[in-house]
Amino acid sequence: MPATPLAPASSLDDVRALARDLPGPDTAARATAEAREPTLTKPAGSLGRLEELAAWLCTWQGGHPPRLDRVRCVVFAGNHGVAAKGVSAFPPAVTVQMVANFQHGGAAVNQLCRTGGADLDVIPLDLDTPTKPFDTDAAMTEDEVVAALNAGLTLDLSAADLLIVGEMGIGNTTAAAALALALFGGTAADWVGRGTGVDDAGFARKRAVVEAAKALHGDALSDPLEALRRVGGRELAAMAGGVLAARRAGVPVLLDGFICCAAAGVWQALTPGGLDHAMAGHVSREPGHRRLLDALGKPPLLDLHMRLGEASGALVALSVLRGAVACHTGMATFAEAGVAEGGGS
Amino acid sequence: MPATPLAPASSLDDVRALARDLPGPDTAARATAEAREPTLTKPAGSLGRLEELAAWLCTWQGGHPPRLDRVRCVVFAGNHGVAAKGVSAFPPAVTVQMVANFQHGGAAVNQLCRTGGADLDVIPLDLDTPTKPFDTDAAMTEDEVVAALNAGLTLDLSAADLLIVGEMGIGNTTAAAALALALFGGTAADWVGRGTGVDDAGFARKRAVVEAAKALHGDALSDPLEALRRVGGRELAAMAGGVLAARRAGVPVLLDGFICCAAAGVWQALTPGGLDHAMAGHVSREPGHRRLLDALGKPPLLDLHMRLGEASGALVALSVLRGAVACHTGMATFAEAGVAEGGGS
Repeated sequence: MPATPLAPASSLDDVRALARDLPGPDTAARATAEAREPTLTKPAGSLGRLEELAAWLCTWQGGHPPRLDRVRCVVFAGNHGVAAKGVSAFPPAVTVQMVANFQHGGAAVNQLCRTGGADLDVIPLDLDTPTKPFDTDAAMTEDEVVAALNAGLTLDLSAADLLIVGEMGIGNTTAAAALALALFGGTAADWVGRGTGVDDAGFARKRAVVEAAKALHGDALSDPLEALRRVGGRELAAMAGGVLAARRAGVPVLLDGFICCAAAGVWQALTPGGLDHAMAGHVSREPGHRRLLDALGKPPLLDLHMRLGEASGALVALSVLRGAVACHTGMATFAEAGVAEGGGS
Repeated sequence: MPATPLAPASSLDDVRALARDLPGPDTAARATAEAREPTLTKPAGSLGRLEELAAWLCTWQGGHPPRLDRVRCVVFAGNHGVAAKGVSAFPPAVTVQMVANFQHGGAAVNQLCRTGGADLDVIPLDLDTPTKPFDTDAAMTEDEVVAALNAGLTLDLSAADLLIVGEMGIGNTTAAAALALALFGGTAADWVGRGTGVDDAGFARKRAVVEAAKALHGDALSDPLEALRRVGGRELAAMAGGVLAARRAGVPVLLDGFICCAAAGVWQALTPGGLDHAMAGHVSREPGHRRLLDALGKPPLLDLHMRLGEASGALVALSVLRGAVACHTGMATFAEAGVAEGGGS
């Protein structure tokens, strides 16, 4: 069993070291899962992606059968200097108000954790200290980004079968767009969307902020962790930390929307296969998300036109995983049930 | 509260009368649901189709809030004369074997009812008496199709908040293809797929059977109920009966795959709006299903490459409905949570 929690990192170089020599897939567990599927009382392949999900869980949990006894959902919240620049439909004060709403059980994430069967932790990150506006400065110092990464890296995942990370942070689709641009190229227009529903003027400001950031930070953005520091945000860094901690702990990850995927994308940009333990829960209405999933090579499980964040899309997808595990582990085999197997026609 | 169960029909004209003057949408309940959404602590519209689902349940349950306390899943099984013609990858004996598997809890539908929170009933329909091969004869007499319709029409749905109907019947994608062709036009090639995985020779036989049925029955297929009698099957008729009973009882329906949708399509072909109380749970890998959903004007909730039947796709989609209801009913409003509302930028 891999060690968890990880010790806190003290520098970005520490984090860089953790992202090297990552644990690989358990191909024996995957083979066991794949060998069971054709014995179950259904036409071969007829459960579609549910069969893929069962095998994926085994591959990254490192064992068979797949388990979903304890699902951890961790929502990180952060505040953004760029929020003061009119890039969001909501005022920056909403971040702290929504954290209180999470803590009182009133948000979408609370309802979806209950229906999906996930344990929720809400971790606010220095909400009184927004990041610096990244169009004129680096969003965070190295100490700040490392502290935020540690919020995820040091999660105790020893009892977890699956990790879902989510976020809250007014202005954070702007940060995610700047980070996606740094990690996967293209133009600001490719990655900037309406977020929570900004108007035309705010949308134009949002794009200008991302373009200015690219011009300001230039080649420094070619290093994924440096890009996270310069144009990311605390909750993005913490989600990234959680995703890396999960990989090291043998815990698969179900990804949420645009912001979550931009943050997790750091590991894929840094290390080939660095995000192989993560599945895309859904594709959101934020237009950059589909482009991002294409860049990550991850077809989403769901397309329900959601665009809320808070891990909400991944939590709806969790129910699909539960169906997959229930079928894989609970179905009778042809032999057990006395059902004749198919054979051509 | 509408009367349920319905009295058994004694003729197709009885059934035809039941399909006239159908209860319409509860627009007041829908308006109440739609008015609540923008008050909840999330950006307007950000739960996407989850918001649509909450309103849809209210519209067809005839009240607010939406409820999913009791979900009925009824799987009907029938045998098909055309199965003897080598149109399936599985032998006809598998129908009765799978019914036993359902009754012993070993099939996919059992696991998915458990994870989705649905009560399962399995209703085998004269499995010892297959329908007649519909390429050379009418599949059923009027008495036979009415008896099969009654298996669904007379369901007691008084305590149900949602109905899901599913099927088992070796050969029934062939019947569904012939029925879809009768109801929605096109060619046999448009509607015939591989079903449970028939080989090339079986696939060619399957298409030939559907083409022969069209040539044999000709204009008689233009009457949807007569088409159901001539080229359908008992489990298709029973599913259709259940879908109509649900409409009359004020119970929304979540549709499963190709066969379920072909059966339910009878009501849309017979009466404009006759299937407005039904939502498409998923689109299957059976290629005719997407065409059928297009003809029905119903975008599917899920696309997970499933093709099993047994209500399995609808049962996975049920979890999405549960998330929708939980968010709609459980979330705090902006006023309750003390969260500032958005307004442009």
